[in-house]
Amino acid sequence: MNCTIGLDYGTNSVRCLIVDTATGEELGTSVYDYPTGEAGIILDASDHNLARQHPRDYLKSLEDSVAEAIRDAKSQHGDFDPKRIVGIGVDTTGSTPLPVDANGTPLALLDDFRDNPSAMAWLWKDHTGHAEAAEITDLAKKEHPEYLAKCGGTYSSEWFFSKILHCLRTDRKVCDAAATWVEHSDWIPAVLSGTDDLSKLKRCRCAAGHKAFFSDAWGGYPAKDFLSKLDPKLGDLRDSLGNTTYTIDTATGGLTDAWASKLGLQAGIPIAMGGFDAHLGAVGSGIATGSLVKILGTSSCDLVISPNDSNLPDIPGICGIVDGSVLPGFFGLEAGQSAVGDIFNWFVNTICPDGEQAGSHEALTEKMAHAQPGQSGLLALDWNNGNRTVLVDQRLTGLLLGQTLHTRPDEIYRALIEATAFGALAIINRFEEYQVKVSEVINCGGIAEKNPILMQIYADVTGREMKISRSAQTCALGSAIAGAVVAGNAAGGHDGFAVAQEAMTGIKPTTYKPDAANHATYQELFGLYMKLHDSFGLSGHTEELSQVMKDLLLIKEWGNA
Amino acid sequence: MNCTIGLDYGTNSVRCLIVDTATGEELGTSVYDYPTGEAGIILDASDHNLARQHPRDYLKSLEDSVAEAIRDAKSQHGDFDPKRIVGIGVDTTGSTPLPVDANGTPLALLDDFRDNPSAMAWLWKDHTGHAEAAEITDLAKKEHPEYLAKCGGTYSSEWFFSKILHCLRTDRKVCDAAATWVEHSDWIPAVLSGTDDLSKLKRCRCAAGHKAFFSDAWGGYPAKDFLSKLDPKLGDLRDSLGNTTYTIDTATGGLTDAWASKLGLQAGIPIAMGGFDAHLGAVGSGIATGSLVKILGTSSCDLVISPNDSNLPDIPGICGIVDGSVLPGFFGLEAGQSAVGDIFNWFVNTICPDGEQAGSHEALTEKMAHAQPGQSGLLALDWNNGNRTVLVDQRLTGLLLGQTLHTRPDEIYRALIEATAFGALAIINRFEEYQVKVSEVINCGGIAEKNPILMQIYADVTGREMKISRSAQTCALGSAIAGAVVAGNAAGGHDGFAVAQEAMTGIKPTTYKPDAANHATYQELFGLYMKLHDSFGLSGHTEELSQVMKDLLLIKEWGNA
Repeated sequence: MNCTIGLDYGTNSVRCLIVDTATGEELGTSVYDYPTGEAGIILDASDHNLARQHPRDYLKSLEDSVAEAIRDAKSQHGDFDPKRIVGIGVDTTGSTPLPVDANGTPLALLDDFRDNPSAMAWLWKDHTGHAEAAEITDLAKKEHPEYLAKCGGTYSSEWFFSKILHCLRTDRKVCDAAATWVEHSDWIPAVLSGTDDLSKLKRCRCAAGHKAFFSDAWGGYPAKDFLSKLDPKLGDLRDSLGNTTYTIDTATGGLTDAWASKLGLQAGIPIAMGGFDAHLGAVGSGIATGSLVKILGTSSCDLVISPNDSNLPDIPGICGIVDGSVLPGFFGLEAGQSAVGDIFNWFVNTICPDGEQAGSHEALTEKMAHAQPGQSGLLALDWNNGNRTVLVDQRLTGLLLGQTLHTRPDEIYRALIEATAFGALAIINRFEEYQVKVSEVINCGGIAEKNPILMQIYADVTGREMKISRSAQTCALGSAIAGAVVAGNAAGGHDGFAVAQEAMTGIKPTTYKPDAANHATYQELFGLYMKLHDSFGLSGHTEELSQVMKDLLLIKEWGNA
Repeated sequence: MNCTIGLDYGTNSVRCLIVDTATGEELGTSVYDYPTGEAGIILDASDHNLARQHPRDYLKSLEDSVAEAIRDAKSQHGDFDPKRIVGIGVDTTGSTPLPVDANGTPLALLDDFRDNPSAMAWLWKDHTGHAEAAEITDLAKKEHPEYLAKCGGTYSSEWFFSKILHCLRTDRKVCDAAATWVEHSDWIPAVLSGTDDLSKLKRCRCAAGHKAFFSDAWGGYPAKDFLSKLDPKLGDLRDSLGNTTYTIDTATGGLTDAWASKLGLQAGIPIAMGGFDAHLGAVGSGIATGSLVKILGTSSCDLVISPNDSNLPDIPGICGIVDGSVLPGFFGLEAGQSAVGDIFNWFVNTICPDGEQAGSHEALTEKMAHAQPGQSGLLALDWNNGNRTVLVDQRLTGLLLGQTLHTRPDEIYRALIEATAFGALAIINRFEEYQVKVSEVINCGGIAEKNPILMQIYADVTGREMKISRSAQTCALGSAIAGAVVAGNAAGGHDGFAVAQEAMTGIKPTTYKPDAANHATYQELFGLYMKLHDSFGLSGHTEELSQVMKDLLLIKEWGNA
């Protein structure tokens, strides 16, 4: 029996999964919570945009989670032998860049910068660079509109250059000490394979393409003179980034002796290039041409791939289209909803917090489970956290319509679920309008696992069968698959992703098939949803209304200023 | 000291008020809950549209409430002498018609019909005649559009002929036994003054004009052949209605010996013509040309008067314009919001029922009291129970917009209050657009009394000072004023309403003045409110959206059918 390790660095914890490369059986697993900050995140009470992580936690959790997963595998399988681990794959959140010195050591691991948040990892949801993001967008619009075309028209405050530019503006000392900035997803593989020569550091396609304007269409990362106009030091950074990025079929190198000894593994086993958690989750869900993988959690990430020899048009509102970001040889197309579970949590925890009995997810779900589509007369927009796809507009807000004096909380709860289903259908429709056929939908993530009523509503709304990924840990599984591919068949892995996914992934036996009558009613409701969607969301579509949500935000900000 | 009695028959109880005619001082008061049914209302579990009251309750409550008010006056004022009561006025809910026999006795007081709901009083909120209302509207549209012009374009299921026509269709025996149908507001004065000759029964202008198509413009009640087309028996009823109706300066007659002895009052004191509670409430609030009286409760009733020698145009969306319905010599103009307090109660009791501490009106009010206008980013429409004025459309529903993942219940609560304030401003604006100047706003009712934050929001939204009626029982006070006017100055009352109101009404010393900065922000928000209002409420205004709420109701009804 051969197996690989998948390491999944999430927002609050890291997961380690040991997987049988022949069957995909999950032999051992562990979860390790980052010890620093609040639930692993360093916050700043005076600036709610700030969210950092300490790289020390990443190293400690690496050691501990692998050890624990091996213990777990041994306890479940008496004959388990860590020597049979033939490769390692890694995924992380992103864009989560950290400044490193000339040896590749994160500044936060040096005494001088130990407690300086600017020297730590800037977690994906750090929004301190929002002004810099707008500055980058403005300059790109003027000078390089092609940069924006592949990422939905707006450069986000969550992304690589926004964060670094903000650091340049606010903590010059850190920037001066940094030889370069590295994504979390690139740093862990570099650590494991001992890459302390920065010129040899491999950067992954996934982060570069989706968050750092990387495309072969313009020779890799954005032009130095573009970055220099934002700040000369950002132009210098360009030199350190190189011109090549790598897909997950590439090994960064072999496991160093030191780490092999620390982790109890064989030295030299290959470490795969890293990628973002959602992208590896798609791999672990068995993504292939024609399948849409939905990673459903607090928000959703929807991924599709399309052969990279196809003549794929730009698709308006799709956040990113990056060659090789999910699988080598395919364009990775990323879409998503800014809030899914977060909307239900908001309603349950904040609006309707009627204790365990009446106001819990379970109680509301039970009450609304047998409702008929349209029976409540309610219709909602799923924009409480903006709209990522297809409108790409954070300055949109929620809407609920149809309330009477008899409207019940469970009816609103169901309307919110339906709204996220309508939003999901709008994404599917957008793909298909641009020749990207969606022939199956595979869901993964906690909500997909635990909420059959929601999955049935998604099936009824979309008119499509909803499949659920077999693994509950698809991101880590995807990384383990990458580990198997860089190991190769001869070493007990696989030669390429197609065979690896075939062997190691699958869907659960229970799927959710659309009910024809419910789908017919939902088609009517979706028509009404799209009227609201276009009227409030599409600039110029309905002159009087398309500014209403934004005007309210302006009044709010003006009042708060 | 002379005084009069005001009797106010509400939905669940009757109030009796004894008032000093010289000062308006309230000497004694009592509340008597109707004993029959649920909170005084006979319901039918199999038909939620049904709401009846037993006329037996009206008589019993008359006796008991007057006796209790006299006891109360004596206990507060040792020298109080019921012989100084010089007149009686009466107001009731409406349209609340009841079938009577040839002696004016309600059928429900006869052995044969005692327990038959069709023979009882059909309470204002009985909606069993909704199909018949549509039938009457359709026929009037075709044959007498002028009938509809004065009542907002639609004949309501709550009104006189809808209820009688429904009885004709469902309980012929009751209709055959009925010599005529009488409004509750006409029956009580008739009882007190001993009118058992139906040909002498006086019907009040208020009920006839607002609920039974009565206007001097077409010779009183609607044409017999119009009613006959609906049902020949309804044509026969027309003969019993007469051609004259009376305003509240008219006495129906003097208190009979029998009732004088029962109530411990002087025989022969004049009984004023009755009217609806809201209309007498306006009188008790001191309504005059230029004042808008808002009766704020579960819904709102907004009343304005305008001299009847003025050339008043029809005002689109104003429910009724009736000569003399509030005060003789003036057009009474009735507007209103289908839900005000009901919306807040719905939110507190149904959506956010987080116990006394967190989710009560008091707790939510305290939390939102110091919020700035626009600070929440929320905007709502106050249509959870449809829109009575100015859209006159029951098939409109609620809307809440601007929610984020951080939106709190107290912010929604405030947005709902603001929505009712915007709805109130839309009504004021409509009056003023049609030359009915609103130079002061007087509020009464529980919400106005108890919620200074709400009153300040109303002032800030409308940019007008909000005054509160001095009396907490303006309806009963208005009736007592009518009692004083029919008594006349010589008998210890007053010659006419102007002097009576001057002597007997007033406003509270505390008023709510608009804050200029808040008003400026609310003007912005009101502009956005009106965009939503027109887009969703005005047929054809925004082609895609003006049907959305109705389409949802159609889908709901289609699904439930």
